[in-house]
Amino acid sequence: MRAEPGPTRWLARVEAKLEAALPPVTAEPAHLHAAMRHAVLGGGKRLRPMLVYAAGVATGADETTLDAPAAAVELLHAFSLVHDDLPAMDDDAMRRGRPTVHVAFGEATAILAGDALQALAFEVLADADAPPDMRLDWLATLASAAGAAGMCGGQAMDMAATGGELELDGLQRLHALKTGALIRASVRMGAIAGGADAGLLARLDDYAAAVGLAFQIRDDILDIEASSEQLGKTAGKDAAQDKVTYVGLLGLDGARRRLLREAEKARAALGPLGARAEVLRGLADFTVARTH
Amino acid sequence: MRAEPGPTRWLARVEAKLEAALPPVTAEPAHLHAAMRHAVLGGGKRLRPMLVYAAGVATGADETTLDAPAAAVELLHAFSLVHDDLPAMDDDAMRRGRPTVHVAFGEATAILAGDALQALAFEVLADADAPPDMRLDWLATLASAAGAAGMCGGQAMDMAATGGELELDGLQRLHALKTGALIRASVRMGAIAGGADAGLLARLDDYAAAVGLAFQIRDDILDIEASSEQLGKTAGKDAAQDKVTYVGLLGLDGARRRLLREAEKARAALGPLGARAEVLRGLADFTVARTH
Repeated sequence: MRAEPGPTRWLARVEAKLEAALPPVTAEPAHLHAAMRHAVLGGGKRLRPMLVYAAGVATGADETTLDAPAAAVELLHAFSLVHDDLPAMDDDAMRRGRPTVHVAFGEATAILAGDALQALAFEVLADADAPPDMRLDWLATLASAAGAAGMCGGQAMDMAATGGELELDGLQRLHALKTGALIRASVRMGAIAGGADAGLLARLDDYAAAVGLAFQIRDDILDIEASSEQLGKTAGKDAAQDKVTYVGLLGLDGARRRLLREAEKARAALGPLGARAEVLRGLADFTVARTH
Repeated sequence: MRAEPGPTRWLARVEAKLEAALPPVTAEPAHLHAAMRHAVLGGGKRLRPMLVYAAGVATGADETTLDAPAAAVELLHAFSLVHDDLPAMDDDAMRRGRPTVHVAFGEATAILAGDALQALAFEVLADADAPPDMRLDWLATLASAAGAAGMCGGQAMDMAATGGELELDGLQRLHALKTGALIRASVRMGAIAGGADAGLLARLDDYAAAVGLAFQIRDDILDIEASSEQLGKTAGKDAAQDKVTYVGLLGLDGARRRLLREAEKARAALGPLGARAEVLRGLADFTVARTH
């Protein structure tokens, strides 16, 4: 009997872990729990969990050990989407082809569901079945990536930049925090589980930084090229909101060239890992080729 | 040379720890950092940090060890106030005698500042100078108290109950989560640092549950009795928002009697701790007598 390929199996693993970690709608407050589940269980690419598993397996970690950080990073990502979609932020009504949380459950519940998802991410890590030092390393990594020096800081810079002036350097700094920090944390948490040494951690961090940047450039290109139906969210929002994007700064061809260069950087960083890094390579290629 | 009394010294300790943990306004994104500092450093009773120190010292913990959990619980509390004050939630313009964060910094920044403060609370614990198992125990305690089964869940129940029907049982369940969970976590984190055994943890938890309930009853009474100037926030909001309160359900005299009974319960739970629990007793008395 041939085993399923890694990513297919990992997707099932992280879905099961998320399902088990989320509070049931049969318990009170049911409205909050339903909103949390809506935010997390409505599909999504699960790119960050895949990076956790891929980096973990590439460095010799056990798949079981990776379930907790994979679920935790997706909970944190889902929380950030719920808050970013709020009327006071990006004011988005559609996400993953469905109404956003504040549209479906009201604004107060959306704020609280996001808050509760962030707490749950840390709870999953604190309660994980892994050595204490590993859990603490994960927790410090994820907390730092989530906060003012990471994701929240990047979103704050993004809100401030809308309609304003921003050069390429500033845009890269913004995205290094807004989307890059969590992508880097995903790879790092996987590599921590695999017991990677400082040299390997640094190499994988180069990979993750390039993937994070490529992901964002592809996002900007898709916002121009794809339809709302393909994206599962409103297309053409960037231009409508006067957002500074890579396409805006580099042109469509320039952005495509930069995208390929980052994907190449990501592959180069994986050099010495050989066959073990096959899925990490595939994920870098996916960020270039994805259509949603 | 006589040492300062504990609480005065603890207040200085936690202020210093908070100041050091918060990102500086000289760094980008400065607007977000300023909002986080506004939320945390604007005074406040610091009841929860005091409970961490008092429970820790009562069980034999070192003061230095308690700085991290004391600061973490206050960061989490400050985050909850910022989000509770938002227009979509309680819509409050004044807090601690100053404009609330969304009034001073805008709604998007207030949402993000709250999010970043929650992440910072967990980061402070993960990075604390304490044994790994102690840090993990703190992290699990705080994450569980913050999330859907704690503070966020209680706030969600509160939003749903506004203008609706709620009996005394339901109100107690609501407050056991909304304010009780974090007060219990404060006492528990202190006791964890002191290496308290299961029996002592249970006893201190009885104390904390009673203090939490007394605190909320006093809050409801103050909302009727005190002026906005005394409170540093808008008085009479509960009635204006048609909130279910202890005063509404029990009458003013009934609420006062219940308050005293909870304070007595809190004192009784401390029985066997003797002189070491002096400050814990004082904090129970404070929740009954406070005027803001």
